[in-house]
Amino acid sequence: MTLLPQPTREQLDLSRVLEALSNPIRQRVVRQLSESTDFTLTCGELLPDLPKSTATHHWRMLRDSGVVGVARNGREFRANLRRADLDARFPGLLDAVLAAI
Amino acid sequence: MTLLPQPTREQLDLSRVLEALSNPIRQRVVRQLSESTDFTLTCGELLPDLPKSTATHHWRMLRDSGVVGVARNGREFRANLRRADLDARFPGLLDAVLAAI
Repeated sequence: MTLLPQPTREQLDLSRVLEALSNPIRQRVVRQLSESTDFTLTCGELLPDLPKSTATHHWRMLRDSGVVGVARNGREFRANLRRADLDARFPGLLDAVLAAI
Repeated sequence: MTLLPQPTREQLDLSRVLEALSNPIRQRVVRQLSESTDFTLTCGELLPDLPKSTATHHWRMLRDSGVVGVARNGREFRANLRRADLDARFPGLLDAVLAAI
């Protein structure tokens, strides 16, 4: 299983994290991941029924902002919520968002 | 002093609030308002040195999302941070953002 490139904890940027969290489709992904164990759900399961280019855009926003990690295993991509990194850099932010979505 | 139109507390939408908070220029306004008493600072003081159209865009994002209220008194516009409304609808969110900016 290979982790796709992602910002380090130190590189997390508040503006990009808030932008990633501001979209209802991405909020749904974050909620689902918050209720799942790391790297269990596949990207296809998390964003079904979306055109590939739209799904790719959302995954890029989630991964590039550091909200979500994605790991590849062959042809499968599985995601996790980077809760520890987000909590360390922006204490209380993720909990506040999760409580509201 | 007349309050410009703004969403009610019940109308506040998480996605729009997060989008409003995701921009560094608007974050600076929010921080300044958080350190000031309501309707003390003028919009001109809060966003100096910006082209009028750019400033108007940022005020619209802040006011339409419900993050900030703006009151008019003649030719003067003064702003406040809608902390009580934001705290009531999204507990912990504003504090988490303020701690990070």
